[in-house]
Formats: sequence, C-alpha cells, structure tokens
Amino acid sequence: MTTTTTTPTVDDQYEERVRASFGRQAVMQTIGAEMTTVTPGLVEISLPYRADLAQQNGFLHAGITTTIADSAGGYAALSVFGPGQDVLTTEIKLNLLAPADGSHFLARGRVIKSGKTLTICQIEVHAHKDGKTSLCAYGLMTTMRMQVR
Amino acid sequence: MTTTTTTPTVDDQYEERVRASFGRQAVMQTIGAEMTTVTPGLVEISLPYRADLAQQNGFLHAGITTTIADSAGGYAALSVFGPGQDVLTTEIKLNLLAPADGSHFLARGRVIKSGKTLTICQIEVHAHKDGKTSLCAYGLMTTMRMQVR
Amino acid sequence: MTTTTTTPTVDDQYEERVRASFGRQAVMQTIGAEMTTVTPGLVEISLPYRADLAQQNGFLHAGITTTIADSAGGYAALSVFGPGQDVLTTEIKLNLLAPADGSHFLARGRVIKSGKTLTICQIEVHAHKDGKTSLCAYGLMTTMRMQVR
Amino acid sequence: MTTTTTTPTVDDQYEERVRASFGRQAVMQTIGAEMTTVTPGLVEISLPYRADLAQQNGFLHAGITTTIADSAGGYAALSVFGPGQDVLTTEIKLNLLAPADGSHFLARGRVIKSGKTLTICQIEVHAHKDGKTSLCAYGLMTTMRMQVR
Repeated sequence: MTTTTTTPTVDDQYEERVRASFGRQAVMQTIGAEMTTVTPGLVEISLPYRADLAQQNGFLHAGITTTIADSAGGYAALSVFGPGQDVLTTEIKLNLLAPADGSHFLARGRVIKSGKTLTICQIEVHAHKDGKTSLCAYGLMTTMRMQVR
Repeated sequence: MTTTTTTPTVDDQYEERVRASFGRQAVMQTIGAEMTTVTPGLVEISLPYRADLAQQNGFLHAGITTTIADSAGGYAALSVFGPGQDVLTTEIKLNLLAPADGSHFLARGRVIKSGKTLTICQIEVHAHKDGKTSLCAYGLMTTMRMQVR
Repeated sequence: MTTTTTTPTVDDQYEERVRASFGRQAVMQTIGAEMTTVTPGLVEISLPYRADLAQQNGFLHAGITTTIADSAGGYAALSVFGPGQDVLTTEIKLNLLAPADGSHFLARGRVIKSGKTLTICQIEVHAHKDGKTSLCAYGLMTTMRMQVR
Repeated sequence: MTTTTTTPTVDDQYEERVRASFGRQAVMQTIGAEMTTVTPGLVEISLPYRADLAQQNGFLHAGITTTIADSAGGYAALSVFGPGQDVLTTEIKLNLLAPADGSHFLARGRVIKSGKTLTICQIEVHAHKDGKTSLCAYGLMTTMRMQVR
C-alpha cells in the first residue's frame, strides 16, 4: 500500500562510507547510539534509554528522538550517494505519537525519493519496552547532496 | 509585519514553574544548555558549542539544534499554562537554514496561538560566531496541554 | 518495513459517514475530485487534470495537490471515528517530490495512529501519465476529533 | 523579536516578473484570488470567501488556504530571484490554527532566507470577518530556484 522506491547504490562501498561518517558523528557516541542496519536506502540506529537524555517526566527528550531519526534518515540518503559526496539535512518534521517510553529505541530512515539535489526520507522511531514495540515518532525530512570536493 | 499574539499568563508564578520543569529536563544538563529568558509566551535557551555534540563535519548536530528549539518552544507554551498543567510536544518542524557553525547557540520559542488543547509555537536558533549572529534554524511546533492530576 | 497500524472502525456505517461528509465538501465538486476508495483507515481521492487548476507552468498547483491529499487524510481519519464525530486538520506537511505532471492524480490518506484527541495520517499523491504512475507528493498531517454535538 | 532578513532584489523589474507569473497561474483566477502586495521578499494574496471552495462545515477548505499561502510564499521567493529564474515549491508545512471562517482571507509570504538553491519562506493566512481579523494559518515552506533556460 505504501510506496517504496528501489534505490540502487552507486557502488558496493556504500556501507563503508556510511559507517565511516557515522563514526565521525561525535554526538552519537555521546548519547550512546549505535548503527545497527545499513542497506541500500534504509538505515537503522539503536539507542538504549538513559536517564540523562530525558525530559521533565523521565521520557526520552523529543530532541533526542529527533537526533537518532535525523541520523537514520541522513545516512539512508548517504547510502545511495556516491564517493566524495556528503549529506546535509535541510528540513525535518517529526510527529511525536506518544511519549518516548522504553528501555531502548530504534530509529529507521528510508529513502522515498533521491534526486540530483534533494533526497527525501521517511523516518520513524520505535520504543521497546517489556518485550513490546510501539511506534513513538513518525516523520519525514529533506537532505541535500553535497560535493565534498 | 509578523503576527504576535499577546499571550497573558495565568498568574505570576509562571517563571518559577517553567524554570522548575526545565531543571528536571536532565538532557539539558547533559548537553550544557541554560535557560536565559522566560517572559510570557517567549523563552530562550543558550547552548555553548561542544565537539561531543557535533555531526560528521564538526557542526552542531541538527538533532541537538532541535533539542534546544523544542525545549524553548515547549517552555514558551508552558509559560502561558496554569498550575498543575504540563506540556507535551506533538509535532515539530525545523528548517535548517545553514550548518550550525558557532561558539554558542541561542534557541528562541514564541507562542503563536494558545488554545484549550493545542498551543502552536514558532521556534528559531541563532548561531553566534566571532561576534556575529546568524539564523541557522527556523520552524514551528505543536504542543499539547496536559492536566498533571 | 513500514509501520501500519490496524485501525478498527467503530461500526459498519463508516463508509456512509465518510461519503456523506465528502459530498458536503463543495470544493471537491468545484475541482472535480471523486472519492474512489474508502476502507478502514485508508481513503483515496481521484482528480483529473484541468488546466484551470494549474500553476504558471501548467502543472497542477501545489495547493490543489494539497487539497486532495488533505481530504484523503482527513477522511481516512474520519473512517475510524464514531457517529456524531467530525474531523478537523490541525497541521499538514507535504513534500512535493516532482512537478505534478499527469492526466490525473490519485491522493491516498492512511491512518498511522488514532488517538483520543489527535489522529495522524500519512498522505501521498501519485501522478498518472501515459500509462505510468509516479509519486509526486508525500507527507503527513494531524487531525483533531471533534464532537459534533 | 522575530528575525527579518533584508532581502535585496536583483533589479527593479521584480514586481513585473512576479505579477506576470501570477497571471499565468490559472488556478488563481479559478478560485478568485488577487495579488495585492508585491514588495522585495514579501507578497500578499487576497481571496474572497466562496461557498464552492468550502469543506463540509462551510469553512474555507484547508487545501485552498494552503493554495493561497503557497502562492504568496512562492512569489515572495520569486521577488528576490533574477530574470530567467522560476520558483518551485519543494515542501510546505501549514498549521491551521482555527477553522478558516471569514468573508475574505489574506495570505502573506515572506522570505526568511534566500540561498543559491533553496529559499525558505514564512507563510500565514488571516481571516477577515465582521471587521475583525484573526490568524487562521501559520507555516513555512521551501522553494527551489530554477533556471528557466
């Protein structure tokens, strides 16, 4: 029912490029996020809950939910870019469907359309708690393809 | 030219309530953010740059930009709520106008319309660098008024 | 890969309620839109191209693309509401992936999460041209459940 | 309090270019919209209420509100572009603050940031009723600068 664009990668080094860039995103280490999945046009990032990332009621802060969603979407885009290209988010929109209540969170980014200049990704975050999973955030974002050199 | 709604506060304890809630947002301490301004319907949060909050090119990660923008908007909303009420973000949209390049950042949230259920806020983040200021993010968000008890 | 929430309807009059409300949306007749599909949590609206709905280059105006997307999402929400309830869009976000170039357009709205107050829907518009279909708009929206009486 | 970017125009034919393009947007005539203000980086469009543009309760359909907001923002962008350039909306986000209840509506678009590729605009729609004005929609959008030739 939902549209999925098959997004071919430029070469088979895409995962290496994505993981190398993720490794340079210092904030990911700061919050304890890990890249769990890298496939063509789809990336997942996992984040264990930590009390020092919470808002006033102990739930994961919406901005941290956005942080992992943004990286998942950005790297989904980068996975279909070529060597010597980088990715920049130009806008992000996230609906927070429920308080982010879980022991860990999984952010998924997925390319909807990849163009010469702009690549649009759908993003979502799932909360895992007591063996159950619930969708806590759902959105989309636009990224820009940058020529590094 | 731009619409500003005068948003009266319910009583004169609004700043106390806002600052107390901000004090419970553990993530604000984790990233080093400070609440600098609390006036009726307008809140500002300041964040010094830290390399451990950066993305792959050393700029502030878009998710951290969103984190301070979300809290600024959320507390702008809370400033016009009453005692025994709390605030929850239901959706957030941020346009990242330029890489967040600065020595510190100022997020500002401002109530556009406060309703019985939903309160809409405009949010923006300014980067300060070498004595100059530039707008690096601009957006809006919806918050929901919650009855705590 | 994408999250789909099973959204039960309240009773089996949901399609009747949705079609009756659509029939009162005068603008749908004005632009020539037709409701083609009503299933629980998913609604489709079809619009033949008309030159008098175009922007400066002859493509369907983004606002008209939004008009059918908004109604598709709104009625997807209404399909899971109960008797005596109405739907109001509180915010809408649409990414226009390509100029809306087609002989007719299909808008699809799909409930992502239906809550007591807010229901979030994913929306998309497909352009049909020369026997081929392309996704030209993709977004999401929030609707509010209203008690009519 | 709100950031306004001074946006210089390229030459003094900007109003002529904007009005000529608006004249080619057939949908504007279809719905009865008029361009009332064109200044550098700010454009206003007026729309009298018509029952055939309404949703199920007689208010202006959110999609029509979006239609005039999109054109106001798009032409605000075009006003700062140069000869031989055209504008395309890549994404639009509108918060509908209240049902669009009025005898006429004024949409205003205003450039927030104009870049080489993307130009971001703030958009809003005001409802006029019985001598009073209220803000009924508030949002933002991204446009892309196109080289016509």
